[in-house]
Formats: sequence, C-alpha cells, structure tokens
Amino acid sequence: MPSRQVHLSGNLVAEEDAKISIFDSAVLLGDTVTESTRTFAHKPFKLEQHIDRLYKSLKVTRIDAGCDAAEMLRITTELLEANLPLYQSHEDCWLVHNISRGVSVPGPDPTVQRSSATVMIYTQPMDLRGWAKYYVEGCHAVTPMSRIVPSQSLDARIKNRSRMSYTLAEMEVKLVDSEAQSVILDIDGNVAENKGGNIFLVSDGVLKTPAPRNCLAGLSRETILELAQQLDIPSQETTLQPYDFYTADEAFFTSTPYCIMPATKFNGLPVGDENVGPVTKKLLAAWSELVGIDIAKQALDQMKS
Amino acid sequence: MPSRQVHLSGNLVAEEDAKISIFDSAVLLGDTVTESTRTFAHKPFKLEQHIDRLYKSLKVTRIDAGCDAAEMLRITTELLEANLPLYQSHEDCWLVHNISRGVSVPGPDPTVQRSSATVMIYTQPMDLRGWAKYYVEGCHAVTPMSRIVPSQSLDARIKNRSRMSYTLAEMEVKLVDSEAQSVILDIDGNVAENKGGNIFLVSDGVLKTPAPRNCLAGLSRETILELAQQLDIPSQETTLQPYDFYTADEAFFTSTPYCIMPATKFNGLPVGDENVGPVTKKLLAAWSELVGIDIAKQALDQMKS
Amino acid sequence: MPSRQVHLSGNLVAEEDAKISIFDSAVLLGDTVTESTRTFAHKPFKLEQHIDRLYKSLKVTRIDAGCDAAEMLRITTELLEANLPLYQSHEDCWLVHNISRGVSVPGPDPTVQRSSATVMIYTQPMDLRGWAKYYVEGCHAVTPMSRIVPSQSLDARIKNRSRMSYTLAEMEVKLVDSEAQSVILDIDGNVAENKGGNIFLVSDGVLKTPAPRNCLAGLSRETILELAQQLDIPSQETTLQPYDFYTADEAFFTSTPYCIMPATKFNGLPVGDENVGPVTKKLLAAWSELVGIDIAKQALDQMKS
Amino acid sequence: MPSRQVHLSGNLVAEEDAKISIFDSAVLLGDTVTESTRTFAHKPFKLEQHIDRLYKSLKVTRIDAGCDAAEMLRITTELLEANLPLYQSHEDCWLVHNISRGVSVPGPDPTVQRSSATVMIYTQPMDLRGWAKYYVEGCHAVTPMSRIVPSQSLDARIKNRSRMSYTLAEMEVKLVDSEAQSVILDIDGNVAENKGGNIFLVSDGVLKTPAPRNCLAGLSRETILELAQQLDIPSQETTLQPYDFYTADEAFFTSTPYCIMPATKFNGLPVGDENVGPVTKKLLAAWSELVGIDIAKQALDQMKS
Amino acid sequence: MPSRQVHLSGNLVAEEDAKISIFDSAVLLGDTVTESTRTFAHKPFKLEQHIDRLYKSLKVTRIDAGCDAAEMLRITTELLEANLPLYQSHEDCWLVHNISRGVSVPGPDPTVQRSSATVMIYTQPMDLRGWAKYYVEGCHAVTPMSRIVPSQSLDARIKNRSRMSYTLAEMEVKLVDSEAQSVILDIDGNVAENKGGNIFLVSDGVLKTPAPRNCLAGLSRETILELAQQLDIPSQETTLQPYDFYTADEAFFTSTPYCIMPATKFNGLPVGDENVGPVTKKLLAAWSELVGIDIAKQALDQMKS
Amino acid sequence: MPSRQVHLSGNLVAEEDAKISIFDSAVLLGDTVTESTRTFAHKPFKLEQHIDRLYKSLKVTRIDAGCDAAEMLRITTELLEANLPLYQSHEDCWLVHNISRGVSVPGPDPTVQRSSATVMIYTQPMDLRGWAKYYVEGCHAVTPMSRIVPSQSLDARIKNRSRMSYTLAEMEVKLVDSEAQSVILDIDGNVAENKGGNIFLVSDGVLKTPAPRNCLAGLSRETILELAQQLDIPSQETTLQPYDFYTADEAFFTSTPYCIMPATKFNGLPVGDENVGPVTKKLLAAWSELVGIDIAKQALDQMKS
Repeated sequence: MPSRQVHLSGNLVAEEDAKISIFDSAVLLGDTVTESTRTFAHKPFKLEQHIDRLYKSLKVTRIDAGCDAAEMLRITTELLEANLPLYQSHEDCWLVHNISRGVSVPGPDPTVQRSSATVMIYTQPMDLRGWAKYYVEGCHAVTPMSRIVPSQSLDARIKNRSRMSYTLAEMEVKLVDSEAQSVILDIDGNVAENKGGNIFLVSDGVLKTPAPRNCLAGLSRETILELAQQLDIPSQETTLQPYDFYTADEAFFTSTPYCIMPATKFNGLPVGDENVGPVTKKLLAAWSELVGIDIAKQALDQMKS
Repeated sequence: MPSRQVHLSGNLVAEEDAKISIFDSAVLLGDTVTESTRTFAHKPFKLEQHIDRLYKSLKVTRIDAGCDAAEMLRITTELLEANLPLYQSHEDCWLVHNISRGVSVPGPDPTVQRSSATVMIYTQPMDLRGWAKYYVEGCHAVTPMSRIVPSQSLDARIKNRSRMSYTLAEMEVKLVDSEAQSVILDIDGNVAENKGGNIFLVSDGVLKTPAPRNCLAGLSRETILELAQQLDIPSQETTLQPYDFYTADEAFFTSTPYCIMPATKFNGLPVGDENVGPVTKKLLAAWSELVGIDIAKQALDQMKS
Repeated sequence: MPSRQVHLSGNLVAEEDAKISIFDSAVLLGDTVTESTRTFAHKPFKLEQHIDRLYKSLKVTRIDAGCDAAEMLRITTELLEANLPLYQSHEDCWLVHNISRGVSVPGPDPTVQRSSATVMIYTQPMDLRGWAKYYVEGCHAVTPMSRIVPSQSLDARIKNRSRMSYTLAEMEVKLVDSEAQSVILDIDGNVAENKGGNIFLVSDGVLKTPAPRNCLAGLSRETILELAQQLDIPSQETTLQPYDFYTADEAFFTSTPYCIMPATKFNGLPVGDENVGPVTKKLLAAWSELVGIDIAKQALDQMKS
Repeated sequence: MPSRQVHLSGNLVAEEDAKISIFDSAVLLGDTVTESTRTFAHKPFKLEQHIDRLYKSLKVTRIDAGCDAAEMLRITTELLEANLPLYQSHEDCWLVHNISRGVSVPGPDPTVQRSSATVMIYTQPMDLRGWAKYYVEGCHAVTPMSRIVPSQSLDARIKNRSRMSYTLAEMEVKLVDSEAQSVILDIDGNVAENKGGNIFLVSDGVLKTPAPRNCLAGLSRETILELAQQLDIPSQETTLQPYDFYTADEAFFTSTPYCIMPATKFNGLPVGDENVGPVTKKLLAAWSELVGIDIAKQALDQMKS
Repeated sequence: MPSRQVHLSGNLVAEEDAKISIFDSAVLLGDTVTESTRTFAHKPFKLEQHIDRLYKSLKVTRIDAGCDAAEMLRITTELLEANLPLYQSHEDCWLVHNISRGVSVPGPDPTVQRSSATVMIYTQPMDLRGWAKYYVEGCHAVTPMSRIVPSQSLDARIKNRSRMSYTLAEMEVKLVDSEAQSVILDIDGNVAENKGGNIFLVSDGVLKTPAPRNCLAGLSRETILELAQQLDIPSQETTLQPYDFYTADEAFFTSTPYCIMPATKFNGLPVGDENVGPVTKKLLAAWSELVGIDIAKQALDQMKS
Repeated sequence: MPSRQVHLSGNLVAEEDAKISIFDSAVLLGDTVTESTRTFAHKPFKLEQHIDRLYKSLKVTRIDAGCDAAEMLRITTELLEANLPLYQSHEDCWLVHNISRGVSVPGPDPTVQRSSATVMIYTQPMDLRGWAKYYVEGCHAVTPMSRIVPSQSLDARIKNRSRMSYTLAEMEVKLVDSEAQSVILDIDGNVAENKGGNIFLVSDGVLKTPAPRNCLAGLSRETILELAQQLDIPSQETTLQPYDFYTADEAFFTSTPYCIMPATKFNGLPVGDENVGPVTKKLLAAWSELVGIDIAKQALDQMKS
C-alpha cells in the first residue's frame, strides 16, 4: 500500500520520512504557526478561512512562508488530492499546516535563520474514537489551577505550537478524572478556552461564549455562531465564570476534529440534568446537515470497527 | 573529516542526520524541556547542576526521560568525549539537552504518546562572534511592549522550548535597534528577564537582580552571585523596574554562552557613563579565572579568524 | 498687527503677556482641567459639548471655575470673536480652555488656595503641517512599553493636564520611528488610547473602538460613531488588543486638530495593504461635508504655503 | 523691603514677577520635574542629594536642563545666598527646583519645543503652622478609594508635577476628616505613599516602610533609615497593608518640610494608644540633633507668633 | 399574642426559640447560603425565582438541603401562611432562607458534618423606617477603600452569609457620613455592588448597570430591567467607574426590602441636580403598580406610626 | 457524667445548650472573629498571644467584645479550669473563642445591633485521628482552582468566620483526592495558605514560607520560625509558587491542632523522596520537647483506642 505523502518545504515525501532537523526553530524555539482543517466526506471544511487565519498568524509572528495564500491553497489542495485515494469513503482526515521559521542559528538574535521557513503540510486519518462516547454521554469538564497565557504575553489568536502551558493544564485536570477535559481560566478568573477548543454554555435558551480575547478565535466557534443564527438561537459573546458553567443548562466544547463535544459534568457536578441537551443536539444536527455527514455517527461507527 | 555525533534517543547519529518526525510533540506541542551547558577549555561547566535542573523540569512537566540523572550524566559525558576531538583547543562548545515527550497521538489527551520521550543531546561550536563586541562596548538593552508569561500560566523556571513569546518580544526590540537585547517586563511592570538570560544592575556598588519568580533561575545568574560573594560585592534579590535600569551605574545580562553581556544603553539612554563598568569587569575577570580562560578574549579572537 | 488676545481669569491680555505665576497649581500640581475645541471655517465645532465635558471635569476634580457653563460659553465666544479677524479665511484655530485650581499654598492640604481658579482661554492658529502627510500616507502606529494610567488612579475621562505619562510614552515610540504615533495599552494589555487621541480599527467592514474605560471619551470619537451610523457602517465598542491592530484592514486615530489620522503601519508591519483605506476615506469625506471644508486639503494646502 | 528673588531660566527676577507663559509645557503637559529641599538653621539639607535625584528625573524624562549638576548646585546656592538675608534667623525656607521641558508646540510630537527648558528655582518661607500640632497630637491618616499611579504608567520615583491623582486622593480623605492625611494604596492594595510623603510603621519595636516601588524614594525616608541605624532601631523595607497600619504601635509620615508627622489615628481607629510613640520621638530628637535645631519647637513657635 | 413561627430543619418553633448550636457550620464557617424574598400586600414577590436561585447557590456550594425546590416552595409557603395572620394588612414581611451545611466536625475536612443541613426559614416584619427618607431625599453613596471579593475567590452570585467583607466596607463609608451607603469597587476599580444591593445609573436617558460578574445577580435588578423594557427606557449592562457615577444624571440602588433607593450624592458631590430623578421615579411607580402597593408610601407611613 | 461548660456572653451553659439566635450576626453576616488555642498536657499554648491577636481582629473589625484582653484571659482560664477535669490526662483540648457583633437589625446599616457582642468560648476534645496518619505518611497537598480572598477585600490576618471561600477551595481539592489538603494560591498565582494553616517548604536545607500578606499570620507558623532559629535551620519569608513546591525536598503545613502536617505529595507528584523529611522531623521533635508531649504519638495513640 502506498504511503501518505507529506509536503515538506516544497517536496512531497512519504509520511514516515517526514522529518526535520533537531536544529529547526520548530524544535528549538516552538517557533511554529499552525492550522488544522478537517474534511467532511473528503471535502475540506472552510479551508480558505483556515489559510486566511494562517496568514494572519504568519504576519503577526513575522514568519515568511515563502509563498502567498493563493499558492498555499494550491499546494494544500494538491497534497490533499494526492492523499485522498488512501482514505476510505467513510473516513475523513485532518489537513494540518505547521510552518516554522526554519533552522535557527544560536546567537544574540533568535530570528536569524540558516534556512527559510520549514513548511510542513500533512493529512492524518481522523481518528475520532477518543471523542466518540462524548457525543452520547458528554464529557467531564474540569478547571485546572494554571491559567491561560494572557494576550499581553502571547495572543492565543496566533495559532502556534508553543503549547506547553496547555499540556500542563491538561495534566492537572487529569488528576481529577483521567478523561477530564480542561476549562482553562484567564488570569482574572474568567473562562477562557479548552486547550485548542472553544467553550459554549446554554442558559435559559441563550448560547454564550467568551469573546476571543484570551482564547483562540476558532473557526468551529464561528460555525456554531453562524448555525445558531440560522436556527434562531440567540447568542452572546460575554464574560463567563465558573459560576455560569455550574448553573448552565448545557455546555459544550468546539474544535476542528470533533466539531462539538458536549460536557455534562463540571468539576464533579452535573451540568443541567447531566444529559446532552436539546440546543447542543440541534446545533450538532445542523452542522451534520451543513457538511452532509452525520458527525456523531461517523465517530461512533469508528468505535465498532 | 568526521561529523559531530548527536545522541538521539539512545543512538549516536551524525549531526546532519539528526532529525525527528514532524509528529513529535517537540514539533506539535513545543512539549520539550531543555538545558544548555557550555565548556570552558573543553571542560563542561556545572554539568551536574544543569542535569539536576533538567530533572526538575522533567518532573514538573511529568515527562519520563527513560533514565535517571546519573545515567543522563554518563551518556552526556560520553557524547561530549566523542565530539571533543573535533573541536580545536582554543574552541569551546555548547552541550545541549532537548527532551520531548515523544511522538504524540492526536486526540482528547495531548499527553498520550505513540513513543517514549525523544532525547536529543548535541554539541555545537560555541560561536561567540555575535556577542564579542558587547564585551567591549556593551549592548543596547530595550524593553518590548509584550510581557513575560506569568508563572501561573507557565513557570519560567521550567526550562522549556515553548518559546514563541520570547521570540516575538525579541522582534519588538529589534524595531528600536537591530542589535537591541530585550529586557522583558512581567505583567506588573517589573523587570523579569532577557529571552533566556538574567538581568543584573549595579547601583551605588550594590549588585541587584530580580528574584527568580517570573524568570529563569539561571545557573549563570547563580555563578554571578557566588562570584560576588567571593569578591565582597554586596548583592540583593529585589524587585527592579525600568527606573532602576535607567538610573543604574552598570547593567549586564548573564547566560550560558556569553556568561556576561554588559549593557551600556537602555531604551536609547546611556547606562552610567555608557562604558562597561568596574563591577562588571571585576565579575568577568573572576569568572575567567574560575574557568581558566579569558572569556572575552576567546570571543574577540573569534572575530579575527 | 494687533496681537491675539487671551482670556486670563477675567481679563483679556495679549498672547505674549499671557503668563501665570510659577506658584499656580497648574505649575506646581498639574492641577488643571482642559478642553480643546477647533473651528472649521471659523465656526467652533461642538463647543457646547466641549464646555459640557469641561464642567464634568471641573465637577469631578472639585475645581470651582467661578462661573457656570452658560457664562463660560459666553466669554469663550467673545474671545473667539475678538480673535477671529486675525485669522485668514482659509485658516482655522484651536480654542483651548485650561482651568487650574489657582495659586496654591504649600502645606498639609494641597487644595487650599491663595486665589480662585486660574481661567486660561486662548485661540491658536491650527497648524496642521505636522499631520498633513498622514492623510495621504498614513502614519506609523507604535506601542510603547509604558501603560496608560488606570482609571482607579486617575480617570482618563477627566481631561486634565497632568500628562507626563503620555509624553514619556510618546518618547518611547519615537525610539522606533521618529514620527511614530503611540498606541498605548492599558495595564491588562488592551489597546487604550493615543496620547490625547482615540483609536479605531476596521475589520471585515466593521468599525471598532475601545469603550471609554481607560481612555478619553473623545468628542471626535463620538463624531466618528455618529458619522458611521449615518453611513450605515456597523460599529462596535469592544476590547481590542495588538493582534486586532496587526490584522485589521484599516486603522486610524481621532482627535480635535486632525479629526482623522490614518495609520498604515503598526509596529513595523503594514496595516491592510498599507494604504489609507476606503472606510477611513468615507468617514473623512463625511466629516468634511459635515463641517463644510475639505479637512485633508486644508492641511495639505498649509504644506504648500 | 526687598523682594525674594527667583531664578527663572538664567535670570533672577522678583518673586511677584516670576511668571511663565501659559504655553509652557509645565502648564500644558504637567511636563516638569522637581525637587524640594529645605534649610535647617539656614543650611540646606542634603542639597547635593536632591540635585542628584533631580538629574535622575531629568534623565528618565529626557529633559535637558541646559546645565550639569555642578552648575545647578552653583546657581542654586547663589540664589539661596541672595535670599537668605530676607529670612529671620529662627526662620527656615524651602528651596524648590521646577524644570519643565519649555514652551511646547502643538502638533503630533509633544516633545517638540519652541524653547529650551524652563528652569524655576525659588525659596519660600517654611511655614510649618499647618503641621505644628501634629508633632504633639499626631494626625489622622485615612485611606482614599483611589490608588497610586502604578510604576508601569509613571514611576513615582520620577519626582514630577503631574500630580492631579494625588490631589484627588487627598480630597477623598478630606471627606472623612477635613484634616486627614492620605495613605494611598497601590493597585494591589498595599500601602504606597502619602501625596509626597513616605510612610513608616513601628510594630514590636521594628520600623517598617514599603520599598520604593510604587512610591517616591524620599530623601527624608532615607534620613529616617540612617537615623534608625545609628539608634539601633531595627528597620525593614517590606510590603505593608492596612491591617499592618491598624495594628501598628506607632505610625508616621516623612517629608521635606515637616521631617516627621506622627499619625495617631487610622481610618477612625487609634494607632497604638493614640499618642505619639517613643520610637517616633526618638527619631525626631535624633533628626533635630543632626540638623542643630529643635524641629517640632520651630513649628510650634510659629503658631505663637 | 401568638409568636411568629420559624421553620428550623423540619420543625416549626417560636421565633424566640429559634436557635442553633454554636457548633453549626453557619457559625463556625459562615457556610450558609441564603435568599431574602419580600411580600407586597402579603403576597411573596418572585418566590419561585428566589428558590430557583437558592438551589443554584446550594448546588455550587455542594450543600444538600435535604429536599428539592418544589418541596422547599411548599414548606416556605406553609410557613408564610402560618405567620401572615400576625401581620397587619398594611404591613409586609421578609421571607428569609438560610441553609447551612449543618453541625461541622473539626478535622482535616471542613465539609464533614455531624448533622444534615440546618434549614432556617423565617419571616420578619418589613421595617422600612431606615430607608423611608431616601425615597424623598435620596441617600449619600460613598466608595470604601476595600474592594469586593473577586469571583475567582468567591463568586458574589452565590448568595451566601460569609459577608464580613461587606460589613467592613460598610463601616468604612460610615466614616464619611454615618448614613452613607456603600458603592464597592472591584479589584480593577469598576463599580461592583452595594453590600447586597445592585447599582444603577441614568445618563442621557440610558439606564446602566454593571454586568453580574463581581456582584450579585439580583432579582430586584432583574425587575428593574424588565420594567425598563416595558417603559421603553433603554438599558445597558456595562462597565461603570466612579467617573460615571459622578457625572450621571440619576443613580439608585436596588434590593429586596426597599426595591429602589435613590442616591442623590456621591462622595460628597451632588448626583445630577441632587433630587430624585424622573427615570428613577418612573421605575418606582411602575414597580408599585406591578405589586399593587405604593412602595414609597408604605415606608413613609411607617415613619408616622 | 457532667457536661462540658461553654461560656456564652457571660454565662456558663452546658455544651448541648450552647445555642445562639438565628438572628445573630454570626449567622446572618459571618460577622465573627475567632481564635483557636490548644492545650498540651492540659496547659494552653501561647494563650496570651492568641488573645492578643483576637483583640487585633476585634479592633480592625470594630467589634466591641465588652471586656479587655486581661478580662478575656481571666474568663478563658476560668472556663478551661472548669472543663479540664472532664478530660483524661493523656487527652488535650481545643480552646476556641468566637465573638460576633451580636444580634443584628435588618436595615441600611449592617452594624446596628439589637444586642452587644455574642461571646462564645468553649473547649472541645482534641480529636487528632483525622490527622494522625499524616505524621507518618505525609498528606497529599493539592492546589484548587479558586484563589485566596485578597487582602484588599478582606485581610486573612483578621481571623474570622466568613470562611465559605476556604470550604469551597477545600472541596475542589477533594475532587483530586478525597483526603487532599489544599494549597490555595493568591490572585497572582503565589502560594498563600491552606484553609487555616500555613505552608512551609524545605529546599537545600533552607526553610521557606510566604510572608503573611495574603495568609494568616499563624502562631504555629511563628512557633516554627522560633524553633528553626533555635535549631540553626536557616529560614526565609519569601514568595513561593507551585514550582517551588514541586521541586522542594520537604513540605509541611502548620496549624493549631496538628502543629505540623507533613505533605509528601503535591498535585500527584512526590515531594522529595515521598517520605517525611529530616528537617520536618527535627522541627516536630523540637516542638514536642517544647510542650512536653510527643505530638505525633498523642495523635497515633488516639487511633488505637
């Protein structure tokens, strides 16, 4: 069976050969911006918007990717087309961009590079088994003691790979429940984000989510707000605190791979009646309709195989 | 000419072959702890302390390096001995540890790994040309608008490779002066650290440096405090603010490669009389004596060759 | 040629004789509230609103101006009428109020005064040459390291003359570019204001500006929001951070003298395509129409003379 | 009787003629640095240190006074000598420096000046009647709701005349008691300073005062610390909060005119036994001895005349 | 005359016998949640909503009241009916729930209890004499130096009896005026709440109140927002600061007993023209109409009797 | 068997009759200050200091206990003597003071009381079984997401009974481990206190504890510092953060009942080698010697009976 290809700085290489120097700034400085797109029924979802946001991250970090957004879209599409035959029809994939500043030179200026940017683009099977059961039962959302990096230190809207703080927060919540999902607060104690996911609450029929100030301006988040508008579900960008989560009727996370992950417990207490709620279900159904596949079913089917 | 060897998760490979998968958590999550030691006259300086601190970083990040500190010291020393014949006698080298959590699996838990930790140990020629002139003239220290990541988000004492915030701060100060060195403030406006270096001021004969609360607990910083004690220079760990820097008599940075980098300008204004000061010179001389080489001369000699 | 008159605590004096004691609280304590109005085609713009806001500042600072707002309007209009003949028809002027608490007495209570309030009202030619080219090219907006004085220390909506923090911030940005204009952040890292000007961004067709919490509630700002409403440009009062500025399509400052100053660079990076944008132009045209003169042309014409 | 002279930018003028343009940056921008020295028995106290600190303020604010510190000392001494014959032998005086950036030009850069710095130096009779009774009874210290300007906005160690925030805080405490003296907190709720004075507590025999982080590094404060050392009174620079003030045995303020002002009430509650305490008295006696006059007596004698 | 009954953990006891052990967690830990409802013309106002909020407080504090909300409503109504005959027809009453965790056991876990929750429900005559005159004259609102407990420490929306911080803040404002009502700020200096009451301002016809982030989400507050909507008074949840209060046209507090308490002075300065304003009056009239009694008259009548 | 007596506002009553009105401010407002002393071998430990601190709390909260400290000591001693015969010789007791402001009157001023202060003094058997095993194994210290109430809201040094925030934090850590002990951080992310206990770390032989800024100034804490000085163990009051706890060699809590509670795990990771450390043991031995009983043995013996 042929191997999946990876785009590595202009070359297509087999996935198992996709390696970078240990002197790359990706390794030495976490100096990488990124986007994760997924396909639904083999079609990439909002790929243009992901690439648009990638170029915002590149701009703010002053990394020169070596080509413009149109060219990036072209080579991304080429890679996807090359790999798609390797995926079964019921299977979808991630489509990930990681662009580092290149091989760095130790010295007084960390941005001096020995090479141009390292462009890594790859597809990966969308393995949803880890999330599947949450569509049915909901997950346990837990708050870590550590707080999100504030935007005055590093803006979360720069989608980047210097993510150690997220990993450590995630480990803190695993102390409560080995399957807990993090609800990270900002330094003022407001709900910010899950590591890489946005957070939504439903209270008295109103959908609420923090403004993207100390959290990623997620495209899945944006999709939810668009679907809510279509479904006439009122929505608000507002400040949320743990109290809001404890007393909400429904809660869920959004992120590229799983779209919607309901949360039915928060710090050991039930959210609402501890079942996945009607607004959450409605939004998931609408998203499924939008992309032409049953999102939860796809994940649950993977469990069986 | 034989190539330098790199220790890569148990194997010695040639430097140009030292590559890791683009799926390693080093690349995907910046999930790497690190230490940088240097040699003086081919002898590693405070290697045991560096490895001790590495194991503190490993513990707090819950990364299992696969061996204990004693074994890490052994394999590090072996690597150094293998590579040292490739360095000329007047030349010194970095000795760097980077340990990532390994190849990660996309899913709800970022700490689930497909492999054990990726251990990268390498030596690199100590190229000091970038810093050489600062021993003579001092550098220009500049304050960026961005602030250090607070310890409640990610403690700077975990020496890690999720360093994008440092790189962006460094780019901000380069807007003022393409050779500026950063003096990053914490979110309360206190002097914290240079990207990877500690900061010292001398005022009325007293050496002052911030307590390691929002900055790395540098081993070079520790060396300075030890030398100061031997030289009867009074020293204080205290809160410092830009006003203290503007009105100091002398200022310098400390870090593994250059040991001491005097700063003779701060945000466009002279520090003291804009010359490298007597306390700074005394400390550098004492450090040179401690390690048996003239630190500044080694760097300046590189400029000539 | 007769001299411009200045209203000085009830008397009209020639501008060159308009002097106050060095013991005035204006000098000793920066204890002065202020308003700056300008004329368009010799007509004062929103003078009543400026005087209304002046009386809010007087109230909060507990300074007794010695007359009420109606009387203040009367004497202001008188002064303007006295001076207008000295301005050429194409020329406009500032109309400035500075009211200090009066001559203070050193002692335990800084509000004990030896005199009643010192009322200074003057007109000055509106010299727009410093700003003229920014209408065409836009300016370079730069963020200083210092942060705006928080409202819990001194509310920026009290328009006052204790402005040293603004001057120092302005000097910091001049280190980057001698013509840079400051974008000062608040202590949480949010965009607050330019020294004396408000800040607007345009993103995806939406006009955004910070709520007047840690910044002046500018009357020019208010004019922009009124014009936007008339032009059906959606607008938002919201929290903005440097990321928003970096990724905006357009940006501009507003203030009494120049009305709108486009910003086409931010911290060394282009804003949008680095040209003055269409929404900015539309708003400037509408303002010009409102006041019956071509605002940019007036400034550019001054450059030629 | 001849008038007191004022040094005004190189000229000696009579006090009643000491006036500056209303366009001076002192008036328009509060852009003035300052020092207040006093004499004891006609000898200026720590004048060199005051001028040294003045030059620190000038440096950090980038104001060019037009002469160096030695010349400033010379012209200051000249002025003092010219005026001293006008003071009676038992009378002392203030010796005040105010240096503004000069006459400013309205435009995009607030630091462009139409003139060089405005240097104002004057002496004023040391009228201590306002403080006299506090030597005997102590004053009422009260905490305002407003908080000190944080150093990241404007460092209090830059002794400057943009002091509106202090005046407003002072007015807040006068709501509690028309003779109250302010104990201003910083934005974290720690005791910072009185408007222009430092704060000392005595608890269990230990003298405590905040480190000069969000407060002036007063020379009177320094004198107290020196006297304490001579008297073997242990002293600490430490964080203080209202609780410490409420539960202290003694409390006092320090500033140039009154040297020591005991506080015997704090927010309506007695400090200690509500009498001026023994450590306070000892320090005041030592200071009196140092300068050769009975400081409290001088003030109390003024009350009688 | 028979005594009022109190519901005490399942039993009805006479008010004078309603006592709890000094070992109850109400006493030892302030570990009590609470609601205060009032009657209008003997009908409880929004009792269901109060009980709903009580159950939110119980949930977040993990106190098990021993019965569900429906049962709580039933026993509450029973108690009210038992007591109402003791109130005269023109008299109304408080209806208060206090539920503590029960009798606690000293040891490493403060939540281990020797008993189930202590349920206290009582009615009390609605003595409005303390507030009566404020309907006519308005009260004096004053800002204390202490700041509201931030939600990351204890969310004010948990209506609880650990209220010492409120009492101390209230005492601070009584230093200014023995009848002052507190306007407590949050730790960022924004207006938060009165001890137990919410705060409204009217500026240019718009009703403004802080979002319930660092203050109670009051049901009286909710009533005001509902009445405003019915009366077509535009309203905003927004950040308010002392400046907004100083410059508002009208201001009032809301709370269960008095419904609306106008404030006509703020920190010694008049609010608007120092009279109870038209919007305030309109809202009070609408509320009176809603509940079928003249709210202010009821209070004022009590003064006469 | 006769019952233990409780001192209740001047009367001795049997413990089972020690009840207070549900209208007491202790219940309604958490308006109670407190002290907990313990006996060792039937002798109260530092009772004078506890009463001295009680009077500091009374002063700052402006509660009038109705008698002075000497009288309080007398009645406390009387109560203890009355109850001691009821304790077996190997058994010790708590000696607790709770003083509330008295029965409060609902109205605009929460400090108006219907009665004088409610004074509750009682003894309770010192049941140490909950803590006994921690002397041998150490406990698991865990950090909650909630943060300590900052001193600008309510100073932790006021030992008070408005303790709901502590109870909720304690419940958060029980989610990790049902026997976890809390390490509560302040709002800046620094280690503050355990609910009612202080925190000590030992690193490289140095004993470290936070300064009492956002934590109780514990008398047990003070005892540790005194014992350390006697034992020549260097100690520091300093800022501590979770990193310090993770990398410490030893850690322990201090509080009145258990004196020292070793912590051998922190957030799931071992502290040092996960055994009770030598410095901790030395301090506990010294304390035992000081009070003449083996503290750990007393607790462990209780487990057997």
